[in-house]
This record gives sequence, C-alpha cells and structure tokens, in this order.
Amino acid sequence: MTQQLQLAELVAACRWLGAKGWAPATGGNMSVRQDTQWCWLSESGKDKGSLTESDFLQVSIADNTAPSGRTPSAETGLHTLIYRLFPEAQAVLHVHTVNATVLSRLVKGNRLTLQGYEMQKSLRGQSSHLDALQIPVFDNDQDISALAQRIHSGTSKEDLQWGFLLRGHGLTCWGRNVEEARRHLEGLEFLFECEILRRRLEVL
Amino acid sequence: MTQQLQLAELVAACRWLGAKGWAPATGGNMSVRQDTQWCWLSESGKDKGSLTESDFLQVSIADNTAPSGRTPSAETGLHTLIYRLFPEAQAVLHVHTVNATVLSRLVKGNRLTLQGYEMQKSLRGQSSHLDALQIPVFDNDQDISALAQRIHSGTSKEDLQWGFLLRGHGLTCWGRNVEEARRHLEGLEFLFECEILRRRLEVL
Amino acid sequence: MTQQLQLAELVAACRWLGAKGWAPATGGNMSVRQDTQWCWLSESGKDKGSLTESDFLQVSIADNTAPSGRTPSAETGLHTLIYRLFPEAQAVLHVHTVNATVLSRLVKGNRLTLQGYEMQKSLRGQSSHLDALQIPVFDNDQDISALAQRIHSGTSKEDLQWGFLLRGHGLTCWGRNVEEARRHLEGLEFLFECEILRRRLEVL
Amino acid sequence: MTQQLQLAELVAACRWLGAKGWAPATGGNMSVRQDTQWCWLSESGKDKGSLTESDFLQVSIADNTAPSGRTPSAETGLHTLIYRLFPEAQAVLHVHTVNATVLSRLVKGNRLTLQGYEMQKSLRGQSSHLDALQIPVFDNDQDISALAQRIHSGTSKEDLQWGFLLRGHGLTCWGRNVEEARRHLEGLEFLFECEILRRRLEVL
Repeated sequence: MTQQLQLAELVAACRWLGAKGWAPATGGNMSVRQDTQWCWLSESGKDKGSLTESDFLQVSIADNTAPSGRTPSAETGLHTLIYRLFPEAQAVLHVHTVNATVLSRLVKGNRLTLQGYEMQKSLRGQSSHLDALQIPVFDNDQDISALAQRIHSGTSKEDLQWGFLLRGHGLTCWGRNVEEARRHLEGLEFLFECEILRRRLEVL
Repeated sequence: MTQQLQLAELVAACRWLGAKGWAPATGGNMSVRQDTQWCWLSESGKDKGSLTESDFLQVSIADNTAPSGRTPSAETGLHTLIYRLFPEAQAVLHVHTVNATVLSRLVKGNRLTLQGYEMQKSLRGQSSHLDALQIPVFDNDQDISALAQRIHSGTSKEDLQWGFLLRGHGLTCWGRNVEEARRHLEGLEFLFECEILRRRLEVL
Repeated sequence: MTQQLQLAELVAACRWLGAKGWAPATGGNMSVRQDTQWCWLSESGKDKGSLTESDFLQVSIADNTAPSGRTPSAETGLHTLIYRLFPEAQAVLHVHTVNATVLSRLVKGNRLTLQGYEMQKSLRGQSSHLDALQIPVFDNDQDISALAQRIHSGTSKEDLQWGFLLRGHGLTCWGRNVEEARRHLEGLEFLFECEILRRRLEVL
Repeated sequence: MTQQLQLAELVAACRWLGAKGWAPATGGNMSVRQDTQWCWLSESGKDKGSLTESDFLQVSIADNTAPSGRTPSAETGLHTLIYRLFPEAQAVLHVHTVNATVLSRLVKGNRLTLQGYEMQKSLRGQSSHLDALQIPVFDNDQDISALAQRIHSGTSKEDLQWGFLLRGHGLTCWGRNVEEARRHLEGLEFLFECEILRRRLEVL
C-alpha cells in the first residue's frame, strides 16, 4: 500500500527531526495524506522523535474528526487546511525550532523575506538566489479553527506553497511526498539560521 | 516495585541529558522520590551521563541524612526542599546548562519572565503563549542550607511549581514523574535558548 | 585501483560532512579525480550524507560531459576548473555551511582575510598564525560556466590554492588527496566559525 | 602496568574530545606521564579523535627527545614544561576549540578572569563561585622553545595550576590523572562558552 510506505517514511522523518532537537518536549506534529478524504496525524503528547506507526491516527481532511476516538495533535486543523488547499500535498511537518521561534518574533510584519541565498533553491520551483522569497508569518493563536480560518482567508495559495511561520511558535511546511517535505524543512531551517546570524552581524 | 521503575527511568533521563551536555564535568544532580520519607539522589563527583542505579543513594527527605554513609550530591537540600513542599513531586533534575547559567546572570531581579512562546505550554498547567510565565531566580550560595531556607521563606509554592534558576549556576526543575520532569527540563531549556537569542537581537 | 580507493574515501568524507550538517537539503557536491581526463562527481538531487559509490558519475574534466547520460551536480564546472588548474588536485568538496554562507555575505569585497589563528596551519603550506591568509570570495551566479570563467580570469592560481567562497552560497575546497581536502574543509570551517564569533564581539 | 592503563584512558579521552570537535583538522595534542623521566605524546599530523595507543611516542621530559625517531607533536615542549613544573601532573590535554580560540583573542591582557560561575568548582581546589579565577593568556608563538621559556619565566606555578590559554590558538590543561585533566577541560570549555555568551549580552 502506498499509504503504508509513506507512513514508514514519515516515521523515519520524525526520528530524524527529533534527533535534531526540532520537536522538543513533545512539541510538533506530523502527518501524511492517505487519499482525498483521510490523512494520518501524530497523536498528542508523545515524544515526536520516537514515534512508531501506531502513534498516528486517521483523521478526516474535511472536518478534523478522528474515527478512532483517540486525540490527534492539537494543531490538526493546520494540517487539514494544507491538504484541502493543495491536492498535491502528501506530507505536512510542523516543528518547534529555536530559529523558527525567534526569527518569527523578530519579523514584525506578516512575511519574512529571504534573498541572496543559494539554498533558496532547496524549495520546489526556486531557481535563483536573486529572487526575494516570501514566507508568511501569522500571529500565534490558541484557537486553531480561528487561526486556520485567518490563514485561509488572508493568504493566497501561492504564498503558502512551501509553508508558513507561526509567531513565537514554529514552522509548518509540506511537500508532494515525505522526502520533499523533509527537504523543505531542512532548507528553511538552514535559511532561518543564516538569517538570524546575518541580522545579528549586518546591523552592526 | 514502583520505586525501582522510577530509578530506571531516571538513569535513562541522566543518560539523555548527559549526552546533551547539560551536566558537564560531573556537574548536576538528579533524584526520584521513594515515598513520603525517602528519596534516591545521585552520588557526588560522578559523570552524570553514565550513572547506573547503584550510583544513587537513599536520603531522608526530612533531614538530608544518608543511612549508607556514602556522600550524596552537595545540593541534596534543594531536592528535599522540593519533596517537602510538593507531595506530588516524584523526580527532581538539577542541571548546569550554558543557557541557564548565562540567562540567570543577565536577569538582574529575582524572576525571569517568559511570554509569547508556544512552548510555554510544555509546562504543566500552561495553556497559552499570552500568559507571562515567571521562573524564580535566586542568588547562588555555597551554603545549601541557607539557600534552601532562603528559597523556602521568600517564595510561594505557586512560584516553584516547575522549578527555579540559581544565578550563574543552573536550573532545578521537577515533575510528578520522571517523564514530566524531563519534559519540563527540555521545555525550559528551549525557552532559555530562545530568550537569549531574542534578547541578543531585539535590543538592537 | 587507486581511483577505487579514493572513491571509497570520498564516500566516507561525504558521510562525515553530512553528519555535521554541511550539505543540508541535498545541497553540496563532491568529486575525486580519476586521471588527467576524468573525474567522478556526485549525482544531483541526492542527500550527500548517504551517498554510495554508485551515486558518482564519470565526468570529462575538459568539457563537463558525462558519458553515462546521467545528470552530474549542477556545479560540475567548478570542480573541473580546479582539476584543470591544478594537476595535483585529487579531490574537491563543495559544501553549504551556515558559517560559509553568512561570512561570505558579510565580506563586502572579493577576499576574506584571516590572521592571528593557529589553525591557519591546517592549510597546506601555512606555517604561522602571523601571516594574513586570503580566501577569495566571488559573487554567486546561477550561470556556472560564466562563474567558472569569472573565477578563472580574475584570480591567480596562488589565490585558489585551498579553495574559494561563493557569496551566500558556500565553500569549495580541494586537496592532493581526499584526506587533505577534508582537512582543508574542517580547518576553514573552524576559522569561519571563529571569525564570525570574533567579529560579533570585537566590534562592540 | 599503571602507565598502560593511563594510555588507554587517554585514548578514550581523545575519542571523546574528538567527537566534540575540540581537535579539528588534526589539531591538538595529548600526553600522559610514564614516570619522572618519560611521557607519551600523540604523534603529529593525525586525527586526534581516532588515535590508538600506537599513535603515542615516548618522549623525554627533560629534553623533548623521542628515542623512536618518530616525530612527536609540534608542541611537545609545552607538555614537558608542565611535567617538569608539576610532579603530580599525570596527563596534559591541548585542544583547539572555537571558544578558547576566540575568547583568548578578546582578552587583551595576560589573564582571563572568571567569576560568579558555580562551574568554577569543576577545577581542583576551587570551592566558591565568589572567587575570581585567573587563567593565564600568552601570545601565540611558532617557536615553542621560546614560548615554553616565556611561560616558565613569566608565571608562577600557582598561575598554571589548571592550565593556560594561547592567544588565537587554544587551551592547554592538565590533571593528576586523565580523568581530572578531562574534567578540567570540560569545565573550562563550559566556562569559556558561558563567558563569550555573557560578554555578548551584558555589554549591550
């Protein structure tokens, strides 16, 4: 089953990002799409670096319900938003990294602009460091439905083509398969780290 | 025995935090509660990342004595203070991290305020990034009895509900089980790292 | 076969630098020389930390063509430039590190000067920390032929004796064998990290 | 043989500090004392993280000669100086860390003062964070005999009781056994990292 294989790849991705410290203290959540109706999301409250396939729950993409009755991640609505907006989205990764958390607070407006980095090309469709890459930044909210609605209504699909930052919270990114979602995560995290370091030095 | 299982979990936690470099040069000390009268504390002078169950000593929660005659950690009195104040405390972790050491020196008053971070929710009972989280900061002291007395008399139980910082020294945190103490440690260390990075950049 | 052994050493070097996070999100590329006509280059789009020998393609040093028809790394022309300029070059490593990316942006001119570091001696031929070591810095370019031409025409061989930086992009370095290329990479990365930290503090 | 056991411990310490990146690009050198006349020093040009016992050479403490004819580390004279000054010295570790390299350049005078850190107690004989700990800092020199002479003549034994910094070069520290040398190294490196971070923030 294709879905089975994707879940195995997602579990491997969780182990990888957990080892990097990008989902500390049970933070973060991850998912893969099954088909147009269902996706599989990590269960709440578990250490994301040591998940197994049984720690993922089937969730309805249309209404965030979980047939099993178990509790999916608190941020389920942000995953299903991506799956509803992008039929090609197959995997969503939401992480809590120090760089994403702090950089999103330093950005005062609603987007982070990245320019002049070769690594911008790690994002699908990007071909030059000369382009000004835009990553949306949304104010954090404990009301995930309201937050998902705000992201949906205030942003074009093009703006969300790789992912978005939640201020003081973390990064959500996605891909057409787990491998691409993972490359987007690693590429964006690299760019965030560079940008923090550059801002620290260039302003002087 | 429940106590046996907790000790095994504590040894695993020590290995984990040792690998992260949070107890360098034999620094730090860790304990689990046995019951209302006794807890088990790490022995002095050992590398905390490679402890085994036999490196822990039984210590009286009431008066810090160790029946075995072996020397428990120098900071025994801070562990037993937590166990006396909080009947629900089952594990205490005291670490020496670079971020806790430096941030506690940067804070000039007697508390560190953290606000605007999603990861505040990694601490028991916290439900929003909008709250202003307070972590007490005490001046360091080589007289542990005097320090324990100062912490006890100058602080409400509510202030100590997750732990406290010792200036230029480190973090002490606790949990209702080893897993929660570990989550509190990882969450607080993440917040400290974010806060140091944010202060470095936002003041500019 | 000598070439076989070099490829095995290169694969080990890739694993080593991948583990250090110096080739994130499939970035970076690596090669070894076979003889005066051919070298072997890493294939495009693969995670450089988990390459095997079969992920390397034979490429013509004279004209960058690959007999196999498979696609070598986008930056093939920078590897073959080194092999054409330096008959003694046996291995070329091109990495994307945070320090190389950011430091190359901070340097406004066309060279980075490093002085006062004992670790300058990690570079072939260097014998004193008193010397002013020069590493060329070139503006990044998506046209690799034009970039290779610009590097070739604007720089003496002496300037390129260890490698060069591409602004906002990364470091390319080489050695008379894989071991030396690896030492040059590790030594330069150490110097870049020191220099970023020193600049952050000394300007204050 | 006691000396055999010490060498095995030293090899383990080299592996440990190599994994931490404290001896990059074949930098650094380590030794253990055999008796009043001889010590064993790491051979020049090798990766210090993967040394075996056969990579150490017997060297005369009195005159730095190596009976085997093999080349000991370039900085042999700094190791033997410690063994001549301190009969109780059993192991010497010289490392190239980023923090030691940069902090020694930031210190303009001939000593680094560390105060207010609990971790000062990781150094033999230290009992309070209130003391002002002094670590000597010497200008680097490629003439090791001259450097050793300068250290010897300009410094009291008390000043050298844990080790010293070479400006832009690294840290040399020692212990009454390998375990203590290792604890001194880990404690000092922790303090250097804290001090760099504190200076970055407190001056603002």
